[in-house]
Amino acid sequence: MSIQATLITLKNIPKGIPKPDDFEIIQSKIREPKEGEFLAETIYLALDPYVRVTMVGRHFFNTPEIGDVPRGSTISRIISSKHNSYKEGDLVVMESGMQSHAISDGADVYHVNTGSAPITTALGILGMPGFTAYSALLGPAQLREDDVVLVSAASGAVGSMVGQIASIKNAKVIGIAGGKEKCQWTIKNASMENCIDRKRDNIDQKLSELCPHGVDIFFDNTGGEIQKIVLSNHIALNSRIILSGMISQYNSSKPPSGPNLGNICKQRAIIFGFVVYDYEHMKESFIKDALSWYKQGLLHYSEDLVFGIENTPDHFIKLMKGENFGKTIVQFMDL
Amino acid sequence: MSIQATLITLKNIPKGIPKPDDFEIIQSKIREPKEGEFLAETIYLALDPYVRVTMVGRHFFNTPEIGDVPRGSTISRIISSKHNSYKEGDLVVMESGMQSHAISDGADVYHVNTGSAPITTALGILGMPGFTAYSALLGPAQLREDDVVLVSAASGAVGSMVGQIASIKNAKVIGIAGGKEKCQWTIKNASMENCIDRKRDNIDQKLSELCPHGVDIFFDNTGGEIQKIVLSNHIALNSRIILSGMISQYNSSKPPSGPNLGNICKQRAIIFGFVVYDYEHMKESFIKDALSWYKQGLLHYSEDLVFGIENTPDHFIKLMKGENFGKTIVQFMDL
Repeated sequence: MSIQATLITLKNIPKGIPKPDDFEIIQSKIREPKEGEFLAETIYLALDPYVRVTMVGRHFFNTPEIGDVPRGSTISRIISSKHNSYKEGDLVVMESGMQSHAISDGADVYHVNTGSAPITTALGILGMPGFTAYSALLGPAQLREDDVVLVSAASGAVGSMVGQIASIKNAKVIGIAGGKEKCQWTIKNASMENCIDRKRDNIDQKLSELCPHGVDIFFDNTGGEIQKIVLSNHIALNSRIILSGMISQYNSSKPPSGPNLGNICKQRAIIFGFVVYDYEHMKESFIKDALSWYKQGLLHYSEDLVFGIENTPDHFIKLMKGENFGKTIVQFMDL
Repeated sequence: MSIQATLITLKNIPKGIPKPDDFEIIQSKIREPKEGEFLAETIYLALDPYVRVTMVGRHFFNTPEIGDVPRGSTISRIISSKHNSYKEGDLVVMESGMQSHAISDGADVYHVNTGSAPITTALGILGMPGFTAYSALLGPAQLREDDVVLVSAASGAVGSMVGQIASIKNAKVIGIAGGKEKCQWTIKNASMENCIDRKRDNIDQKLSELCPHGVDIFFDNTGGEIQKIVLSNHIALNSRIILSGMISQYNSSKPPSGPNLGNICKQRAIIFGFVVYDYEHMKESFIKDALSWYKQGLLHYSEDLVFGIENTPDHFIKLMKGENFGKTIVQFMDL
């Protein structure tokens, strides 16, 4: 068996928002899996904002070099296996990145388990983004009934789950999203009580109106100006701030200045640099809760899916521009 | 009994570093204590950096107005009492502020308990500054053996106790202080392994040399540029940052920008807006430990003491300029 794989590689280390010609599509022969390995073909690839950071080395993974395949979570089907826990035909979630095939020794791989929900939810509400929302809210943020929760990038895969989980736990959720359509969606589908349009509203003023006593939890997916405004003026006493993402600066070559931290002292707040990989011990309870909530009709989501590996760079660029809507996925082949 | 009290009041709300004529010394007749109250005379007044912030309302106490007496911890002697728990002659720690006498209902008052140590340590290593160091290190910072601890304002009342407590717990401590004399003192007396002179050294470069793997705990008493450098370049994975004070910006009318928080995410760090009043449950164990450490000769301190209530404004201004050395105290009368 000799398989030809399609790979998206970095032609340049992108400067600013990536451009189509920062990427290259190449063909490469893939080797056979060795003892303890399996070979899988990618069906769905998730495009996540953090991937941009790995391209310049500011994330906690290694810096890729020119010619490397950018990272990415995938739903893959095993087509050949010499691994005891994975057999041919199994559907798994793994980190194949932007390529059609990958060999794995099983590290950080798990079987798809989405119950009655569509399989792509394994990359969204029932996958890493959903788990990020869940583990941060119920872990360090110590979500309590009646908390006021503010979430940025509220219509995104993580943000929309923050709204829905917090609401299930009887907290009040306010979102911030880019554009009227996204805002309306979060109110209708992601349990937000209200949503601030960062493109049209005066965020500072809106927050004073909507959260007059400040926010107890700020779930920050964007960083930047929004973070400055919230941390300086709108956090309540003993508030918890989850730094989950900073998409606003992923495309900048030099990190801009941040918020003055005086108000963090004054409000006795805690800021958590949150990385979901530290919370594996909560995974089992997440899956149990999330499957049950989905079955009860409590979880909604939106997807922005295109077909064809060749469309990966453009779809990723769209995500970086904030023009996507919902979980951004590329389907490489039929299920 | 009719007692004439001397009060330091605010003549202006200070702009920048306070000036002598922002203060006024006045005389005022003091009333008798009512049932459940006592009257005390001040023997020692502690001058603490946070007091500057209360003068513009950025701290969590109320904003004083012109004519108010600035805050301050004191060691006071009760001279008349209608309170069940406090009798004439008792020595107490209380918050009389910048005045010779005060009436209290006993809230936030406790008896001086310094064991074999000099009484003024009730305002320093055995008082609020010592307790701040202790509760932050053993509470949220979760001090562990072999941790690398970095502390700014290292020769101050809080900073020098951070060094000594961390060292007792077998951590390695690096200080940052202003000037050669202060640095040498922290190494000789406050258990620092090394101390960076912020006035002469390149802090960024020195930290790379002294803490090549980053710091596990950053105990920040200054904020400002030091904070930016440490948070951006020198925190280790899973580090804990204690925001205890921000003396660098207490005299600025508008808070400057802060550090970009991207590295907090990357290093999965936690930032605590630390206020000692949240840790009363650790007070008893602090007193027990600190008295025992003192008796064993493990605790050193330095004091910057002047005599005479009329010298209070100048001594406070000196503290604000960073020209003090050690715990800044004004003695109002003989013990």
